[in-house]
Amino acid sequence: MRIDVLTLFPEMCEGVFSTSILGKAREKGIVSLNAVNFRDFSGNKHNSVDDTPYGGGGGMVLKPDPIFAAVEHVLGIEASPLENGSESAVPSPSSVKPRIILMCPQGKTYNQKIAEELAQEQHLIFICGHYEGYDERIREHLVTDELSIGDYVLTGGELPALTVIDSVVRLQPGALGNETSAITDSFSTGLLEYPHYTRPAEFRGWKVPDMLLSGHHANIEVWRREQALQRTLERRPDLLESAELTLKDKKTLERLKNEIKPE
Amino acid sequence: MRIDVLTLFPEMCEGVFSTSILGKAREKGIVSLNAVNFRDFSGNKHNSVDDTPYGGGGGMVLKPDPIFAAVEHVLGIEASPLENGSESAVPSPSSVKPRIILMCPQGKTYNQKIAEELAQEQHLIFICGHYEGYDERIREHLVTDELSIGDYVLTGGELPALTVIDSVVRLQPGALGNETSAITDSFSTGLLEYPHYTRPAEFRGWKVPDMLLSGHHANIEVWRREQALQRTLERRPDLLESAELTLKDKKTLERLKNEIKPE
Repeated sequence: MRIDVLTLFPEMCEGVFSTSILGKAREKGIVSLNAVNFRDFSGNKHNSVDDTPYGGGGGMVLKPDPIFAAVEHVLGIEASPLENGSESAVPSPSSVKPRIILMCPQGKTYNQKIAEELAQEQHLIFICGHYEGYDERIREHLVTDELSIGDYVLTGGELPALTVIDSVVRLQPGALGNETSAITDSFSTGLLEYPHYTRPAEFRGWKVPDMLLSGHHANIEVWRREQALQRTLERRPDLLESAELTLKDKKTLERLKNEIKPE
Repeated sequence: MRIDVLTLFPEMCEGVFSTSILGKAREKGIVSLNAVNFRDFSGNKHNSVDDTPYGGGGGMVLKPDPIFAAVEHVLGIEASPLENGSESAVPSPSSVKPRIILMCPQGKTYNQKIAEELAQEQHLIFICGHYEGYDERIREHLVTDELSIGDYVLTGGELPALTVIDSVVRLQPGALGNETSAITDSFSTGLLEYPHYTRPAEFRGWKVPDMLLSGHHANIEVWRREQALQRTLERRPDLLESAELTLKDKKTLERLKNEIKPE
């Protein structure tokens, strides 16, 4: 898998690309991660990549030319020389059709289902604006997807792109060690996680529930499932609609709903 | 405003803290940003911060002791010596009651309203796990808030914490220059942004809409509002329920709804 991030702040990406799971996946050759500064493709001597909006108003708008040129460079369509020493991208095999993803508040709200879909791709290109808006022609004629990671305003697309990349790369075979994969699947199972406890059994007077120290594994499974159902019911009842529930889960939920009703 | 991030990967944070708006806000003294490695507070010679879960099962669980100790160090309650040369935190004035925020999938879904609320605080402490789950006693007895940035699985809390921090710091007075503040407020107005265009007026045969070149500012305002309404209607109709709409907006929406109905 190959991932290119078009950004004005490649240094924001590099610290994340070289750390933890992303760093390890890169070392193992599972993924190639490149930050491309699209200012290198400005095509003008002032290196400007944005301009004022037609029709007036505040803010700056990212020009179409540098973004198109940077994407085409990454695709190997037009090999513009890089001047500022940023990492040179290896042209993609022409048979691979990349997903070209614009990070923006107007995009589709990202979720685990989209993560699983993107994880099947061979080449992802992310376009990250910073403060500015995007010229609409980028949206209409270049990108294949527009994604938003949530309903909040950020100063740029870099943290959203890195978030999507983290969630996609951890799904690649071999990216996670077995020891780390089991615990992080809140949104994969459709329920929130049950509570976890580790040593010490008593910390500042707060004890681990007796059940978990009992050694009765079947009972522990029942307790954990009920805790997961209860937590999801209390905090995110919307998730229950699409969760995979057994008949027993449904009975447990009925009971829990009755218990939390005021008398 | 002061922000501390408790993490096992301070280098992931530093690249972001020193770049763009966060870097500028830090330089201007608007915010103090510190990454604290809670491994420095492990309290054991192997520097271990996690352990296997009580009751069995896969994954590792973050122990309560290092997290409590790191938070208390940041609060100046217990000044543990730092050994590994990470940035030493200045104790908080005891009058300030910080928000202690756990980034986790079980948390409340973050949105712009929470960003505006957190922007009023003087001191935020973020706790970021990595692959592991958290010992439940951290959740019950230490944190004041649990936040999730969206319904997808990530390898750690660092990117979510940085995302929240970016959205909160940009709301601090003076953090954004005037030139950058106007364009990024999709979720502040409650509608998605209208399309933006900048030079060139024609790019590869694709033209800027005539309206924007007309110079009729009143008409441009009407066009833009309608485009914003249309885009929100098409992509995120859920946002219209809480958006601030004028009577005219409502009439425009009625017309747009009729137009997009199949004949």
